Amino acid sequence: MQLAMIQDEIVAMKELAPVYLDRGIFFGDGVYEVLRSYDGKIFALEEHLQRFSNSLAAIGIARVDMNQIRSRILRAFDAASIANAKIYFHVTRGSALRDHIWDANLKPNFFLTVSQMVDEPDIKTSGIAVSTHPDWRWKRCDIKSLNLLPNVLARQDAARKGCAEAILVDEAGLITEGAASAFFAVFGQTLQTAPLTANVLPSITRNYVIKGAQIIGLDIVESSLTPQQAIQADELFIAVTTKDIVPVVQFDGALIGDGKPGKYTRLLIQEFRSFTA
Amino acid sequence: MQLAMIQDEIVAMKELAPVYLDRGIFFGDGVYEVLRSYDGKIFALEEHLQRFSNSLAAIGIARVDMNQIRSRILRAFDAASIANAKIYFHVTRGSALRDHIWDANLKPNFFLTVSQMVDEPDIKTSGIAVSTHPDWRWKRCDIKSLNLLPNVLARQDAARKGCAEAILVDEAGLITEGAASAFFAVFGQTLQTAPLTANVLPSITRNYVIKGAQIIGLDIVESSLTPQQAIQADELFIAVTTKDIVPVVQFDGALIGDGKPGKYTRLLIQEFRSFTA
Repeated sequence: MQLAMIQDEIVAMKELAPVYLDRGIFFGDGVYEVLRSYDGKIFALEEHLQRFSNSLAAIGIARVDMNQIRSRILRAFDAASIANAKIYFHVTRGSALRDHIWDANLKPNFFLTVSQMVDEPDIKTSGIAVSTHPDWRWKRCDIKSLNLLPNVLARQDAARKGCAEAILVDEAGLITEGAASAFFAVFGQTLQTAPLTANVLPSITRNYVIKGAQIIGLDIVESSLTPQQAIQADELFIAVTTKDIVPVVQFDGALIGDGKPGKYTRLLIQEFRSFTA
Repeated sequence: MQLAMIQDEIVAMKELAPVYLDRGIFFGDGVYEVLRSYDGKIFALEEHLQRFSNSLAAIGIARVDMNQIRSRILRAFDAASIANAKIYFHVTRGSALRDHIWDANLKPNFFLTVSQMVDEPDIKTSGIAVSTHPDWRWKRCDIKSLNLLPNVLARQDAARKGCAEAILVDEAGLITEGAASAFFAVFGQTLQTAPLTANVLPSITRNYVIKGAQIIGLDIVESSLTPQQAIQADELFIAVTTKDIVPVVQFDGALIGDGKPGKYTRLLIQEFRSFTA
Protein backbone atom coordinates (compact mmCIF):
# COMPACT_ATOMS: atom_id res chain seq x y z
CA MET A 1 0.00 0.00 0.00
CA GLN A 2 1.40 3.37 -0.97
CA LEU A 3 1.52 5.57 2.10
CA ALA A 4 2.79 8.73 3.70
CA MET A 5 4.07 9.41 7.19
CA ILE A 6 3.64 12.73 8.99
CA GLN A 7 5.83 12.82 12.09
CA ASP A 8 4.94 9.39 13.53
CA GLU A 9 1.57 8.96 11.89
CA ILE A 10 1.08 6.71 8.87
CA VAL A 11 -1.59 7.79 6.37
CA ALA A 12 -2.69 5.94 3.24
CA MET A 13 -1.52 7.93 0.21
CA LYS A 14 -5.08 8.14 -1.07
CA GLU A 15 -6.19 9.83 2.13
CA LEU A 16 -3.33 12.31 2.32
CA ALA A 17 -4.36 15.99 2.24
CA PRO A 18 -3.06 17.62 -1.00
CA VAL A 19 -1.19 20.29 1.00
CA TYR A 20 1.39 17.61 1.92
CA LEU A 21 2.06 17.00 -1.76
CA ASP A 22 2.48 20.67 -2.65
CA ARG A 23 5.30 21.13 -5.15
CA GLY A 24 6.08 24.24 -3.12
CA ILE A 25 7.48 22.05 -0.37
CA PHE A 26 9.06 19.34 -2.55
CA PHE A 27 10.87 21.75 -4.88
CA GLY A 28 10.12 25.36 -3.90
CA ASP A 29 8.19 25.28 -7.16
CA GLY A 30 6.31 28.54 -6.73
CA VAL A 31 6.65 32.31 -6.54
CA TYR A 32 5.59 34.88 -3.98
CA GLU A 33 5.14 38.54 -3.15
CA VAL A 34 5.02 40.62 0.02
CA LEU A 35 2.84 43.71 0.17
CA ARG A 36 2.23 46.16 2.94
CA SER A 37 -0.41 48.73 3.68
CA TYR A 38 0.05 52.17 5.20
CA ASP A 39 -2.99 53.44 7.10
CA GLY A 40 -5.45 51.16 5.36
CA LYS A 41 -4.05 51.53 1.85
CA ILE A 42 -2.04 48.80 0.11
CA PHE A 43 1.13 50.29 -1.37
CA ALA A 44 2.11 49.61 -5.00
CA LEU A 45 -0.35 46.76 -5.48
CA GLU A 46 -0.31 46.87 -9.27
CA GLU A 47 3.50 46.85 -9.47
CA HIS A 48 3.62 43.81 -7.19
CA LEU A 49 0.96 42.04 -9.25
CA GLN A 50 2.92 42.78 -12.42
CA ARG A 51 6.12 41.37 -10.94
CA PHE A 52 4.21 38.35 -9.64
CA SER A 53 2.84 37.75 -13.11
CA ASN A 54 6.39 37.98 -14.52
CA SER A 55 7.65 35.46 -11.95
CA LEU A 56 4.84 33.03 -12.77
CA ALA A 57 5.61 33.30 -16.48
CA ALA A 58 9.35 32.86 -15.89
CA ILE A 59 8.84 29.45 -14.29
CA GLY A 60 5.99 28.45 -16.58
CA ILE A 61 3.09 28.44 -14.13
CA ALA A 62 0.14 29.10 -16.40
CA ARG A 63 -3.58 29.32 -15.78
CA VAL A 64 -3.36 31.90 -12.99
CA ASP A 65 -5.99 34.60 -13.29
CA MET A 66 -4.37 37.82 -12.06
CA ASN A 67 -7.77 39.43 -11.55
CA GLN A 68 -8.70 36.60 -9.24
CA ILE A 69 -5.40 37.06 -7.35
CA ARG A 70 -6.07 40.79 -6.99
CA SER A 71 -9.62 40.23 -5.72
CA ARG A 72 -8.45 37.59 -3.22
CA ILE A 73 -5.85 40.01 -1.86
CA LEU A 74 -8.40 42.78 -1.52
CA ARG A 75 -10.97 40.48 0.06
CA ALA A 76 -8.48 39.15 2.62
CA PHE A 77 -7.12 42.62 3.39
CA ASP A 78 -10.65 43.86 3.90
CA ALA A 79 -11.58 40.92 6.15
CA ALA A 80 -8.47 41.41 8.27
CA SER A 81 -9.16 45.10 8.95
CA ILE A 82 -5.55 45.83 9.81
CA ALA A 83 -4.48 49.37 8.86
CA ASN A 84 -0.76 48.62 8.74
CA ALA A 85 -0.76 45.11 7.42
CA LYS A 86 1.82 42.81 5.92
CA ILE A 87 0.34 40.71 3.14
CA TYR A 88 2.25 37.66 1.98
CA PHE A 89 1.04 35.44 -0.83
CA HIS A 90 2.39 32.66 -2.98
CA VAL A 91 1.25 30.46 -5.82
CA THR A 92 2.78 27.04 -6.29
CA ARG A 93 2.49 24.82 -9.34
CA GLY A 94 0.09 22.51 -7.52
CA SER A 95 -0.07 19.27 -5.56
CA ALA A 96 1.00 15.92 -7.00
CA LEU A 97 3.12 12.88 -6.21
CA ARG A 98 6.72 14.06 -6.25
CA ASP A 99 8.17 14.21 -9.76
CA HIS A 100 10.45 16.88 -11.21
CA ILE A 101 8.42 16.85 -14.41
CA TRP A 102 5.12 18.62 -14.00
CA ASP A 103 1.73 17.81 -15.42
CA ALA A 104 0.44 20.73 -17.48
CA ASN A 105 -3.03 20.15 -16.01
CA LEU A 106 -1.97 20.75 -12.41
CA LYS A 107 -4.09 23.29 -10.59
CA PRO A 108 -1.92 25.96 -8.92
CA ASN A 109 -2.23 26.44 -5.16
CA PHE A 110 -2.79 29.90 -3.69
CA PHE A 111 -1.89 30.82 -0.12
CA LEU A 112 -1.94 34.21 1.59
CA THR A 113 -1.53 35.66 5.05
CA VAL A 114 -2.42 39.07 6.43
CA SER A 115 -0.63 39.98 9.61
CA GLN A 116 0.01 43.06 11.69
CA MET A 117 3.07 45.04 10.55
CA VAL A 118 5.32 45.58 13.51
CA ASP A 119 6.98 48.86 12.56
CA GLU A 120 10.21 49.66 14.35
CA PRO A 121 10.46 53.45 14.04
CA ASP A 122 13.74 53.37 15.98
CA ILE A 123 15.63 51.78 13.13
CA LYS A 124 14.89 54.81 10.93
CA THR A 125 16.56 57.17 13.40
CA SER A 126 19.31 54.92 14.75
CA GLY A 127 20.07 52.88 11.63
CA ILE A 128 21.11 49.24 11.50
CA ALA A 129 24.30 47.23 11.31
CA VAL A 130 24.79 44.83 8.38
CA SER A 131 27.31 42.09 7.66
CA THR A 132 28.40 40.49 4.40
CA HIS A 133 27.81 36.89 3.37
CA PRO A 134 28.71 35.04 0.15
CA ASP A 135 25.82 35.16 -2.33
CA TRP A 136 24.96 31.47 -2.51
CA ARG A 137 21.67 31.98 -4.33
CA TRP A 138 20.70 30.54 -7.69
CA LYS A 139 21.34 32.34 -10.98
CA ARG A 140 17.80 33.61 -11.52
CA CYS A 141 17.26 35.92 -8.57
CA ASP A 142 15.20 38.12 -10.87
CA ILE A 143 12.48 35.50 -10.25
CA LYS A 144 10.88 35.88 -6.80
CA SER A 145 10.76 32.15 -6.09
CA LEU A 146 10.27 30.07 -2.96
CA ASN A 147 13.90 28.84 -3.14
CA LEU A 148 15.10 30.99 -0.25
CA LEU A 149 17.34 28.76 1.82
CA PRO A 150 20.50 30.76 0.96
CA ASN A 151 18.72 33.95 2.02
CA VAL A 152 17.67 32.31 5.29
CA LEU A 153 21.19 31.09 6.03
CA ALA A 154 22.71 34.49 5.22
CA ARG A 155 20.17 36.35 7.36
CA GLN A 156 20.71 33.97 10.26
CA ASP A 157 24.48 34.46 9.96
CA ALA A 158 23.92 38.23 10.17
CA ALA A 159 21.68 37.85 13.22
CA ARG A 160 24.34 35.74 14.91
CA LYS A 161 26.74 38.65 14.37
CA GLY A 162 24.23 41.11 15.85
CA CYS A 163 23.32 42.50 12.42
CA ALA A 164 19.87 43.17 10.99
CA GLU A 165 20.60 42.24 7.38
CA ALA A 166 23.09 40.23 5.35
CA ILE A 167 24.60 41.94 2.31
CA LEU A 168 25.34 39.35 -0.36
CA VAL A 169 28.65 39.34 -2.20
CA ASP A 170 29.04 37.36 -5.43
CA GLU A 171 32.05 35.35 -6.62
CA ALA A 172 33.46 38.42 -8.40
CA GLY A 173 33.53 40.23 -5.05
CA LEU A 174 30.62 42.51 -5.92
CA ILE A 175 27.57 43.26 -3.79
CA THR A 176 24.35 42.04 -5.42
CA GLU A 177 21.74 42.99 -2.79
CA GLY A 178 20.61 42.20 0.74
CA ALA A 179 19.23 38.79 1.73
CA ALA A 180 15.77 40.40 1.72
CA SER A 181 16.36 43.98 0.59
CA ALA A 182 17.91 46.20 -2.06
CA PHE A 183 21.19 47.90 -1.15
CA PHE A 184 22.22 51.52 -1.82
CA ALA A 185 25.25 53.75 -1.26
CA VAL A 186 25.54 57.52 -1.42
CA PHE A 187 28.84 59.10 -2.47
CA GLY A 188 28.65 62.88 -2.47
CA GLN A 189 25.48 63.62 -4.45
CA THR A 190 25.40 60.28 -6.23
CA LEU A 191 23.19 57.35 -5.36
CA GLN A 192 24.70 54.01 -6.38
CA THR A 193 23.06 50.59 -6.55
CA ALA A 194 23.61 47.36 -8.47
CA PRO A 195 22.11 47.18 -11.97
CA LEU A 196 19.12 44.89 -12.53
CA THR A 197 20.49 41.61 -13.85
CA ALA A 198 19.47 37.96 -13.45
CA ASN A 199 21.28 38.06 -10.07
CA VAL A 200 19.14 40.79 -8.55
CA LEU A 201 15.45 41.02 -7.74
CA PRO A 202 13.74 43.88 -9.62
CA SER A 203 12.80 45.56 -6.36
CA ILE A 204 9.70 47.72 -6.44
CA THR A 205 10.89 49.73 -3.45
CA ARG A 206 14.10 50.34 -5.45
CA ASN A 207 12.03 52.05 -8.16
CA TYR A 208 10.52 54.39 -5.59
CA VAL A 209 13.95 55.07 -4.04
CA ILE A 210 15.27 56.08 -7.46
CA LYS A 211 12.20 58.24 -8.05
CA GLY A 212 12.75 59.93 -4.69
CA ALA A 213 16.46 60.38 -5.41
CA GLN A 214 15.64 62.11 -8.69
CA ILE A 215 13.24 64.44 -6.89
CA ILE A 216 15.86 65.47 -4.33
CA GLY A 217 18.45 65.95 -7.08
CA LEU A 218 20.80 63.00 -6.66
CA ASP A 219 22.60 61.48 -9.63
CA ILE A 220 21.83 57.80 -10.07
CA VAL A 221 24.54 55.28 -10.93
CA GLU A 222 23.55 51.66 -11.53
CA SER A 223 26.84 49.89 -10.96
CA SER A 224 27.89 47.20 -8.50
CA LEU A 225 30.02 47.99 -5.46
CA THR A 226 32.58 45.98 -3.57
CA PRO A 227 32.35 45.79 0.23
CA GLN A 228 35.55 47.88 0.38
CA GLN A 229 33.85 50.61 -1.65
CA ALA A 230 30.66 50.37 0.44
CA ILE A 231 32.62 51.02 3.63
CA GLN A 232 33.95 54.24 2.06
CA ALA A 233 30.44 55.53 1.23
CA ASP A 234 29.09 58.68 2.85
CA GLU A 235 25.80 56.92 3.47
CA LEU A 236 24.38 53.43 3.09
CA PHE A 237 20.82 52.16 3.30
CA ILE A 238 18.64 49.20 2.43
CA ALA A 239 15.13 49.26 0.97
CA VAL A 240 12.43 46.66 1.33
CA THR A 241 8.64 46.67 1.01
CA THR A 242 7.90 46.04 4.67
CA LYS A 243 10.22 48.74 6.05
CA ASP A 244 10.81 50.98 3.00
CA ILE A 245 14.14 52.78 3.62
CA VAL A 246 16.37 51.80 6.54
CA PRO A 247 19.70 53.59 7.15
CA VAL A 248 22.79 51.39 7.48
CA VAL A 249 25.29 52.86 9.94
CA GLN A 250 27.65 49.92 10.34
CA PHE A 251 29.00 47.60 7.64
CA ASP A 252 31.01 44.54 8.68
CA GLY A 253 31.85 46.35 11.90
CA ALA A 254 33.01 49.61 10.23
CA LEU A 255 31.10 52.82 10.96
CA ILE A 256 29.62 54.55 7.93
CA GLY A 257 30.07 58.34 7.87
CA ASP A 258 29.66 59.55 11.41
CA GLY A 259 27.72 56.43 12.43
CA LYS A 260 24.36 58.15 12.11
CA PRO A 261 21.77 58.04 9.31
CA GLY A 262 22.97 60.31 6.51
CA LYS A 263 21.42 63.51 5.23
CA TYR A 264 20.21 62.12 1.89
CA THR A 265 18.96 58.91 3.47
CA ARG A 266 16.80 60.99 5.81
CA LEU A 267 15.54 63.08 2.90
CA LEU A 268 14.69 59.91 0.95
CA ILE A 269 12.77 58.52 3.94
CA GLN A 270 10.72 61.74 3.89
CA GLU A 271 10.13 61.50 0.15
CA PHE A 272 9.04 57.90 0.57
CA ARG A 273 6.42 59.00 3.06
CA SER A 274 4.85 61.17 0.38
CA PHE A 275 4.60 58.15 -1.96
CA THR A 276 2.77 56.08 0.63
CA ALA A 277 0.41 58.79 1.85
CA MET B 1 -7.73 39.92 12.77
CA GLN B 2 -4.66 38.14 11.46
CA LEU B 3 -5.74 35.60 8.88
CA ALA B 4 -4.75 33.26 6.12
CA MET B 5 -6.39 32.43 2.82
CA ILE B 6 -6.19 29.05 1.13
CA GLN B 7 -7.45 29.28 -2.44
CA ASP B 8 -10.67 31.25 -1.77
CA GLU B 9 -11.17 30.29 1.85
CA ILE B 10 -10.33 32.67 4.69
CA VAL B 11 -9.10 31.08 7.93
CA ALA B 12 -8.22 32.85 11.17
CA MET B 13 -4.47 32.61 11.68
CA LYS B 14 -5.00 30.95 15.05
CA GLU B 15 -6.97 28.15 13.41
CA LEU B 16 -4.58 27.56 10.54
CA ALA B 17 -3.09 24.04 10.39
CA PRO B 18 0.69 24.23 11.03
CA VAL B 19 1.43 22.49 7.70
CA TYR B 20 0.52 25.76 5.94
CA LEU B 21 3.23 27.56 7.89
CA ASP B 22 5.94 25.02 7.17
CA ARG B 23 9.27 26.74 6.54
CA GLY B 24 9.70 24.08 3.88
CA ILE B 25 7.18 25.86 1.71
CA PHE B 26 8.09 29.45 2.62
CA PHE B 27 11.83 29.02 2.11
CA GLY B 28 12.64 25.44 1.12
CA ASP B 29 14.15 25.36 4.59
CA GLY B 30 14.68 21.63 4.83
CA VAL B 31 16.63 18.67 3.49
CA TYR B 32 15.59 15.35 1.98
CA GLU B 33 16.67 11.92 0.85
CA VAL B 34 15.35 9.32 -1.59
CA LEU B 35 15.89 5.63 -0.89
CA ARG B 36 14.83 2.60 -2.83
CA SER B 37 14.44 -1.06 -2.02
CA TYR B 38 15.28 -4.02 -4.19
CA ASP B 39 13.20 -7.11 -3.49
CA GLY B 40 12.22 -6.06 0.01
CA LYS B 41 15.63 -4.73 1.06
CA ILE B 42 16.39 -1.01 1.39
CA PHE B 43 19.64 -0.20 -0.41
CA ALA B 44 22.39 1.80 1.31
CA LEU B 45 20.18 3.00 4.17
CA GLU B 46 23.06 3.91 6.48
CA GLU B 47 24.87 5.93 3.81
CA HIS B 48 21.69 7.89 3.10
CA LEU B 49 21.13 8.50 6.81
CA GLN B 50 24.70 9.74 7.15
CA ARG B 51 24.29 12.15 4.24
CA PHE B 52 20.94 13.30 5.62
CA SER B 53 22.58 13.99 8.96
CA ASN B 54 25.30 15.99 7.16
CA SER B 55 22.68 18.03 5.29
CA LEU B 56 20.78 18.78 8.52
CA ALA B 57 24.00 19.93 10.19
CA ALA B 58 24.99 22.07 7.19
CA ILE B 59 21.82 24.16 7.45
CA GLY B 60 21.74 24.12 11.24
CA ILE B 61 18.65 21.98 11.86
CA ALA B 62 19.35 20.54 15.25
CA ARG B 63 17.39 18.27 17.54
CA VAL B 64 16.76 15.55 14.98
CA ASP B 65 17.21 12.07 16.39
CA MET B 66 18.66 9.95 13.59
CA ASN B 67 17.63 6.76 15.36
CA GLN B 68 14.05 7.99 15.34
CA ILE B 69 14.34 8.81 11.61
CA ARG B 70 15.69 5.31 10.92
CA SER B 71 12.92 3.63 12.87
CA ARG B 72 10.24 5.73 11.13
CA ILE B 73 11.64 4.73 7.73
CA LEU B 74 11.68 1.06 8.67
CA ARG B 75 8.20 1.19 10.18
CA ALA B 76 6.73 2.92 7.10
CA PHE B 77 8.56 0.57 4.72
CA ASP B 78 7.26 -2.39 6.66
CA ALA B 79 3.68 -1.04 6.71
CA ALA B 80 3.75 -0.40 2.96
CA SER B 81 4.85 -3.96 2.09
CA ILE B 82 6.19 -2.92 -1.31
CA ALA B 83 9.17 -5.02 -2.43
CA ASN B 84 10.52 -2.46 -4.89
CA ALA B 85 9.68 0.75 -3.14
CA LYS B 86 10.73 4.36 -3.51
CA ILE B 87 11.05 6.04 -0.13
CA TYR B 88 11.16 9.82 -0.02
CA PHE B 89 11.57 11.74 3.22
CA HIS B 90 12.31 15.27 4.30
CA VAL B 91 12.78 17.22 7.49
CA THR B 92 12.03 20.93 7.55
CA ARG B 93 13.00 23.38 10.25
CA GLY B 94 9.41 23.56 11.49
CA SER B 95 6.24 25.61 11.23
CA ALA B 96 6.04 29.28 12.23
CA LEU B 97 4.85 32.65 10.97
CA ARG B 98 7.07 33.54 8.03
CA ASP B 99 10.36 35.09 9.13
CA HIS B 100 13.81 34.44 7.65
CA ILE B 101 15.24 34.26 11.17
CA TRP B 102 14.40 31.02 12.87
CA ASP B 103 13.51 30.32 16.45
CA ALA B 104 15.96 27.81 17.93
CA ASN B 105 13.05 26.13 19.71
CA LEU B 106 11.18 25.22 16.53
CA LYS B 107 10.22 21.59 16.29
CA PRO B 108 11.33 20.08 12.95
CA ASN B 109 8.67 18.54 10.69
CA PHE B 110 9.13 15.05 9.29
CA PHE B 111 7.37 13.82 6.15
CA LEU B 112 7.84 10.58 4.22
CA THR B 113 6.23 8.70 1.38
CA VAL B 114 6.57 5.09 0.28
CA SER B 115 5.48 4.43 -3.27
CA GLN B 116 5.82 1.70 -5.84
CA MET B 117 9.02 1.95 -7.90
CA VAL B 118 8.12 1.87 -11.55
CA ASP B 119 11.24 0.32 -13.04
CA GLU B 120 11.77 0.86 -16.74
CA PRO B 121 14.04 -2.06 -17.72
CA ASP B 122 14.06 -0.81 -21.34
CA ILE B 123 16.16 2.23 -20.53
CA LYS B 124 18.99 -0.05 -19.40
CA THR B 125 19.13 -1.76 -22.78
CA SER B 126 18.22 1.12 -25.08
CA GLY B 127 19.78 4.00 -23.13
CA ILE B 128 18.46 7.54 -22.87
CA ALA B 129 18.99 10.89 -24.57
CA VAL B 130 20.12 13.87 -22.47
CA SER B 131 20.35 17.59 -23.17
CA THR B 132 22.40 20.31 -21.51
CA HIS B 133 21.05 23.22 -19.48
CA PRO B 134 22.87 26.02 -17.62
CA ASP B 135 23.47 25.08 -14.00
CA TRP B 136 21.31 27.70 -12.27
CA ARG B 137 21.48 26.05 -8.85
CA TRP B 138 22.76 27.62 -5.66
CA LYS B 139 26.37 27.35 -4.56
CA ARG B 140 25.89 24.63 -1.94
CA CYS B 141 24.67 21.70 -4.00
CA ASP B 142 26.58 19.44 -1.62
CA ILE B 143 23.58 20.02 0.69
CA LYS B 144 20.53 17.99 -0.38
CA SER B 145 18.04 20.79 0.22
CA LEU B 146 14.45 21.43 -0.84
CA ASN B 147 15.54 24.34 -3.07
CA LEU B 148 15.06 22.44 -6.30
CA LEU B 149 13.37 24.86 -8.68
CA PRO B 150 16.42 25.08 -10.99
CA ASN B 151 16.50 21.27 -11.17
CA VAL B 152 12.79 21.22 -12.01
CA LEU B 153 13.17 23.85 -14.75
CA ALA B 154 16.20 22.07 -16.25
CA ARG B 155 14.47 18.69 -16.21
CA GLN B 156 11.34 20.14 -17.80
CA ASP B 157 13.48 21.75 -20.51
CA ALA B 158 15.02 18.33 -21.21
CA ALA B 159 11.59 16.69 -21.38
CA ARG B 160 10.45 19.34 -23.84
CA LYS B 161 13.39 18.33 -26.03
CA GLY B 162 12.46 14.65 -25.74
CA CYS B 163 15.29 13.95 -23.31
CA ALA B 164 15.17 11.98 -20.06
CA GLU B 165 17.67 14.07 -18.10
CA ALA B 166 19.23 17.53 -18.11
CA ILE B 167 23.01 17.70 -17.78
CA LEU B 168 23.97 20.90 -15.97
CA VAL B 169 26.79 23.09 -17.25
CA ASP B 170 28.31 25.74 -15.01
CA GLU B 171 29.47 29.24 -15.97
CA ALA B 172 32.98 27.93 -16.68
CA GLY B 173 31.48 25.60 -19.30
CA LEU B 174 32.01 22.48 -17.20
CA ILE B 175 29.48 19.74 -16.49
CA THR B 176 28.64 19.51 -12.79
CA GLU B 177 26.03 16.70 -12.77
CA GLY B 178 22.53 15.85 -13.94
CA ALA B 179 19.44 17.67 -12.64
CA ALA B 180 18.75 14.58 -10.51
CA SER B 181 21.68 12.25 -11.18
CA ALA B 182 25.46 11.95 -11.24
CA PHE B 183 27.11 11.98 -14.68
CA PHE B 184 29.91 9.73 -15.96
CA ALA B 185 31.98 9.32 -19.11
CA VAL B 186 34.17 6.42 -20.23
CA PHE B 187 37.21 7.11 -22.40
CA GLY B 188 39.09 3.92 -23.25
CA GLN B 189 39.53 2.20 -19.89
CA THR B 190 39.07 5.35 -17.83
CA LEU B 191 35.94 6.40 -15.99
CA GLN B 192 35.64 10.16 -15.59
CA THR B 193 33.27 12.16 -13.39
CA ALA B 194 33.27 15.59 -11.73
CA PRO B 195 35.09 15.86 -8.39
CA LEU B 196 33.00 16.35 -5.24
CA THR B 197 32.90 20.09 -4.56
CA ALA B 198 30.27 22.44 -3.12
CA ASN B 199 28.63 22.40 -6.58
CA VAL B 200 27.98 18.66 -6.68
CA LEU B 201 25.88 16.37 -4.52
CA PRO B 202 27.97 13.66 -2.84
CA SER B 203 26.02 10.94 -4.63
CA ILE B 204 25.82 7.61 -2.86
CA THR B 205 25.19 5.80 -6.14
CA ARG B 206 28.39 7.48 -7.42
CA ASN B 207 30.34 5.73 -4.64
CA TYR B 208 28.98 2.37 -5.75
CA VAL B 209 29.72 3.16 -9.40
CA ILE B 210 33.32 3.91 -8.51
CA LYS B 211 33.52 0.72 -6.44
CA GLY B 212 32.17 -1.25 -9.41
CA ALA B 213 34.57 0.47 -11.79
CA GLN B 214 37.49 -0.50 -9.59
CA ILE B 215 36.31 -4.10 -9.57
CA ILE B 216 36.14 -4.27 -13.36
CA GLY B 217 39.55 -2.64 -13.67
CA LEU B 218 38.76 0.87 -14.89
CA ASP B 219 40.96 3.82 -13.96
CA ILE B 220 39.04 6.56 -12.15
CA VAL B 221 39.58 10.23 -12.97
CA GLU B 222 37.72 12.84 -10.91
CA SER B 223 37.84 15.81 -13.22
CA SER B 224 35.10 17.93 -14.83
CA LEU B 225 34.22 17.56 -18.50
CA THR B 226 32.92 20.04 -21.04
CA PRO B 227 29.93 19.08 -23.19
CA GLN B 228 32.32 18.98 -26.20
CA GLN B 229 34.45 16.41 -24.38
CA ALA B 230 31.39 14.43 -23.29
CA ILE B 231 30.25 14.07 -26.89
CA GLN B 232 33.64 12.51 -27.73
CA ALA B 233 33.37 9.90 -24.97
CA ASP B 234 33.22 6.20 -25.81
CA GLU B 235 30.40 5.77 -23.32
CA LEU B 236 28.24 8.00 -21.11
CA PHE B 237 25.86 7.15 -18.30
CA ILE B 238 24.02 8.68 -15.37
CA ALA B 239 23.58 7.21 -11.90
CA VAL B 240 20.76 7.84 -9.46
CA THR B 241 19.33 5.98 -6.47
CA THR B 242 15.99 5.15 -8.06
CA LYS B 243 17.39 3.78 -11.34
CA ASP B 244 21.04 3.04 -10.45
CA ILE B 245 23.00 3.14 -13.77
CA VAL B 246 21.32 4.31 -16.96
CA PRO B 247 23.28 4.41 -20.26
CA VAL B 248 23.26 7.70 -22.17
CA VAL B 249 23.32 7.15 -25.92
CA GLN B 250 22.56 10.64 -27.13
CA PHE B 251 23.94 13.95 -25.84
CA ASP B 252 22.50 17.21 -27.16
CA GLY B 253 21.44 15.32 -30.26
CA ALA B 254 24.84 13.69 -30.92
CA LEU B 255 25.10 9.89 -30.84
CA ILE B 256 27.56 8.53 -28.29
CA GLY B 257 29.78 5.69 -29.56
CA ASP B 258 27.62 3.53 -31.83
CA GLY B 259 24.41 4.83 -30.21
CA LYS B 260 24.04 1.78 -27.97
CA PRO B 261 24.88 1.28 -24.29
CA GLY B 262 28.64 0.77 -24.03
CA LYS B 263 30.54 -2.30 -22.91
CA TYR B 264 31.74 -0.92 -19.59
CA THR B 265 28.39 0.64 -18.82
CA ARG B 266 26.77 -2.77 -19.21
CA LEU B 267 29.45 -4.36 -17.02
CA LEU B 268 28.86 -1.72 -14.36
CA ILE B 269 25.10 -2.34 -14.44
CA GLN B 270 25.88 -6.02 -13.75
CA GLU B 271 28.26 -5.14 -10.91
CA PHE B 272 25.62 -2.86 -9.42
CA ARG B 273 23.17 -5.77 -9.35
CA SER B 274 25.57 -7.65 -7.10
CA PHE B 275 25.64 -4.70 -4.64
CA THR B 276 21.85 -4.62 -4.36
CA ALA B 277 21.31 -8.38 -4.12
